[in-house]
Amino acid sequence: MTTILEHDDTIVAPATAEGGAMCVVRISGRRAIEICDAMFRGRRPLGEAKTHTLHYGEIVDRDGRTIDDVVAAVFRSPHSYTGDDTVEISAHGSRYIVSEIIRLAITAGARMARAGEFTSRAFLAGRLDLSQAEAVADIIASDSRWSHAVASTQMRGGYSDMLRELRDKLLHLTSLLELELDFSEEDVEFADRKELRDILCDVQRQTRNLAGSFALGNALKEGVGVAIVGRPNAGKSTLLNRLAGDDRAMVSDIAGTTRDTIEATANIDGVVFRFIDTAGLRITDDRLEQMGMARTRDAIAKARIVLHLITPDDPAEEIISTALSQTYIRLINKIDLCSDADAPATNNEHTGDSPVSLAANSNRNMCDTQVAPTAETDRGAENAAQSTMRISAKYDIGIDDLRRLLRSTVATEAVAGGSIVVSNLRHYEALTRADESLARALDALDNGLPADLLSEDIRQVLHALGEITGEITTDDILASIFSKFCIGK
Amino acid sequence: MTTILEHDDTIVAPATAEGGAMCVVRISGRRAIEICDAMFRGRRPLGEAKTHTLHYGEIVDRDGRTIDDVVAAVFRSPHSYTGDDTVEISAHGSRYIVSEIIRLAITAGARMARAGEFTSRAFLAGRLDLSQAEAVADIIASDSRWSHAVASTQMRGGYSDMLRELRDKLLHLTSLLELELDFSEEDVEFADRKELRDILCDVQRQTRNLAGSFALGNALKEGVGVAIVGRPNAGKSTLLNRLAGDDRAMVSDIAGTTRDTIEATANIDGVVFRFIDTAGLRITDDRLEQMGMARTRDAIAKARIVLHLITPDDPAEEIISTALSQTYIRLINKIDLCSDADAPATNNEHTGDSPVSLAANSNRNMCDTQVAPTAETDRGAENAAQSTMRISAKYDIGIDDLRRLLRSTVATEAVAGGSIVVSNLRHYEALTRADESLARALDALDNGLPADLLSEDIRQVLHALGEITGEITTDDILASIFSKFCIGK
Repeated sequence: MTTILEHDDTIVAPATAEGGAMCVVRISGRRAIEICDAMFRGRRPLGEAKTHTLHYGEIVDRDGRTIDDVVAAVFRSPHSYTGDDTVEISAHGSRYIVSEIIRLAITAGARMARAGEFTSRAFLAGRLDLSQAEAVADIIASDSRWSHAVASTQMRGGYSDMLRELRDKLLHLTSLLELELDFSEEDVEFADRKELRDILCDVQRQTRNLAGSFALGNALKEGVGVAIVGRPNAGKSTLLNRLAGDDRAMVSDIAGTTRDTIEATANIDGVVFRFIDTAGLRITDDRLEQMGMARTRDAIAKARIVLHLITPDDPAEEIISTALSQTYIRLINKIDLCSDADAPATNNEHTGDSPVSLAANSNRNMCDTQVAPTAETDRGAENAAQSTMRISAKYDIGIDDLRRLLRSTVATEAVAGGSIVVSNLRHYEALTRADESLARALDALDNGLPADLLSEDIRQVLHALGEITGEITTDDILASIFSKFCIGK
Repeated sequence: MTTILEHDDTIVAPATAEGGAMCVVRISGRRAIEICDAMFRGRRPLGEAKTHTLHYGEIVDRDGRTIDDVVAAVFRSPHSYTGDDTVEISAHGSRYIVSEIIRLAITAGARMARAGEFTSRAFLAGRLDLSQAEAVADIIASDSRWSHAVASTQMRGGYSDMLRELRDKLLHLTSLLELELDFSEEDVEFADRKELRDILCDVQRQTRNLAGSFALGNALKEGVGVAIVGRPNAGKSTLLNRLAGDDRAMVSDIAGTTRDTIEATANIDGVVFRFIDTAGLRITDDRLEQMGMARTRDAIAKARIVLHLITPDDPAEEIISTALSQTYIRLINKIDLCSDADAPATNNEHTGDSPVSLAANSNRNMCDTQVAPTAETDRGAENAAQSTMRISAKYDIGIDDLRRLLRSTVATEAVAGGSIVVSNLRHYEALTRADESLARALDALDNGLPADLLSEDIRQVLHALGEITGEITTDDILASIFSKFCIGK
């Protein structure tokens, strides 16, 4: 069986999606140019072409039938994405033409590329490290300014540079420690324990910062989950439609549910929020309705933010239990129905009695601290952050304030400043393992444990960090990573 | 208001569909290279690049933020698709990246291209005639060998060459006729009436051939409609699934109907068939069911082929009224339920009493002639072509024969031989008008009408033929044609 790591052969795949004006078929490998010349009829064979040149010609099948007029882009080794000879054929964007070109390439000796195989070849050729290769997939999936920024920093290697620096520090330490082991009978200390401790603490601080950025990175990559909950007829669907706005076309049923949980997305200032309109909460004996509510509770549990809709005539609305890490926002909807004369007009800029509306500034302040319960809360320390706002989903009152409040829960300043933010679960897990080993190493140091134990802990840190960039990895891990790529990348 | 015909400015559009590993943004116009240089950071500016070269670099926004690593393909005027300077930027296939690149191009002075605007510029630059430009859209839409072959012949200009030849002949005639008009008082005949007649007949024969090919061309381009009709529980859905086979995933509700008409496609030897599973036919008082049946009748009316499913225990099945141009095939389904011992095993190769099963050869024979009712029919001359087959949709008996029979109704030999087949309704209508004017011209000739009347008829033929290639056209027609293109082409 061949594995993804072998690349003696030449691979072919469509590099663009179906349905556009043009399509690109990518052929890469030792025989790429020869294979293209078997079907390409231009002024001269591609075999005579210099690297980075474009050639107009026809793709012709073995019966002499012209498949299409194309432009062939020639990249010669090592000046290509994969490092191998590569030809990209741009043709008219028809499914039939793409399949014919691929068929002809296979007939001439290429084979269909596996998912991610072009990028895995770039990795194996040393043109990208593993975290950069993974960022390529994230770049392709990015659909907002900030998810793109996170993936872009990673693809550009900022992450790799930082990890390399940490690893270099640790490698220096282990080499000193291992020198001690060689001279163990003489009881010398090559590695200054004070300096060792400083370096370990420094590495720990940086890995913890990286791991700590995962919550943000994951939210930017996957979108921020916002559950909209409340009693039937509290206005949840109206609010969903209002918040989704122009993105309303993206409203769809979540697969596997029976129309009782509706999701829509909205891009607020470069961050994607996924709003989940849940089934109304109420006490019922109806089995089907109970099942719907179980799903509601599930949606609440998975969301980062819970919007709890109540109506002014229903102050006794039960409290929804949320987790510490979640942001709970209580929304008094339908304020247009209130007798309180100033409510519909002031757009949440008044300061009144509880329930209190929050202006954007105070919201930001509160949400930046996140863990501290605020004076505005009427529910104590149960939630990470909570606030109450008065809105009318129907008449668009207070909705802009709500958008600002939602957006303020996601602090993208670090990303804007070029900081490295971890968005990959695999990396987060490796960082967590590195952190555990670092804690053990510091413990060993503080308790005066022998150098070989200390050295082993540091080796484990090195191993965990090396997994991220692919310096230490297995075929299985590589195969699993690249299988999540799309075909043609 | 600017029209599609102005092209002083520089246009930008995505040339590939969303969702692939890579995407291409196309920028074309007088300032294309300068506009790209405003965002491209490579080893050298693209302004210094030769035509047909590829350049690796970064797209950077005005704040210095890197959007993506890209490859820029430079085509200098006139060596490009549009004839203008063109740059194609290949980036990672993310919606965000595409939108950023387009935003930057627009900031630098480009404007978003209209649908088909790149191709309309190619037409206006004289790089394609109108029928070739229209074939570009057909090529992109082609999803089978034969729809591709029809569009490909047209794009390559075979059609245009043929029309040019016809027009040249007619232009020669009119110039002679108009010379007569100049000398009308002298009553001379510069144009030999016998030769004139021969040429007109020759042109008529060729335009009629072209117009006659439209039924085939349209079927190849749009797919051959096949209505599956019959009583409830005759096995219509089972047959649909059986015929659609691997294409089953493409089964979908037709927009606007309420799940009572299901369509699926199958590619049989390079021809796409669209199977329509209709609501069961029976006499009913139910209003809803009556509406379903009205739709069934509509589907039957639009189909080229009607498959009428009956069961062996129901010989009294009513006859379905079909049009003369339609092929009617009577299918006795569920033959696995027959007591007739040889029926399930023989796979339609026996010759029995009526209802008669047709082997592939006799089918082909019958369908090639198409208009002649055959001996096998039990319904007289009402249908263009009809036959009876015994099948089991459930047990896959006789289905291959049925596929061959269906395929034999579409004679693609001409296309394979490189013949020009008309697949465009606009062209068909122009050919029909040309034919009408030719008939009038011949009539005028035979009745010795004066040269000016004859000349006017021939001018109308020239006008109709000129509309096809775009030698004679209006802005409105052009705008309407190119608006049907996709963006980026």
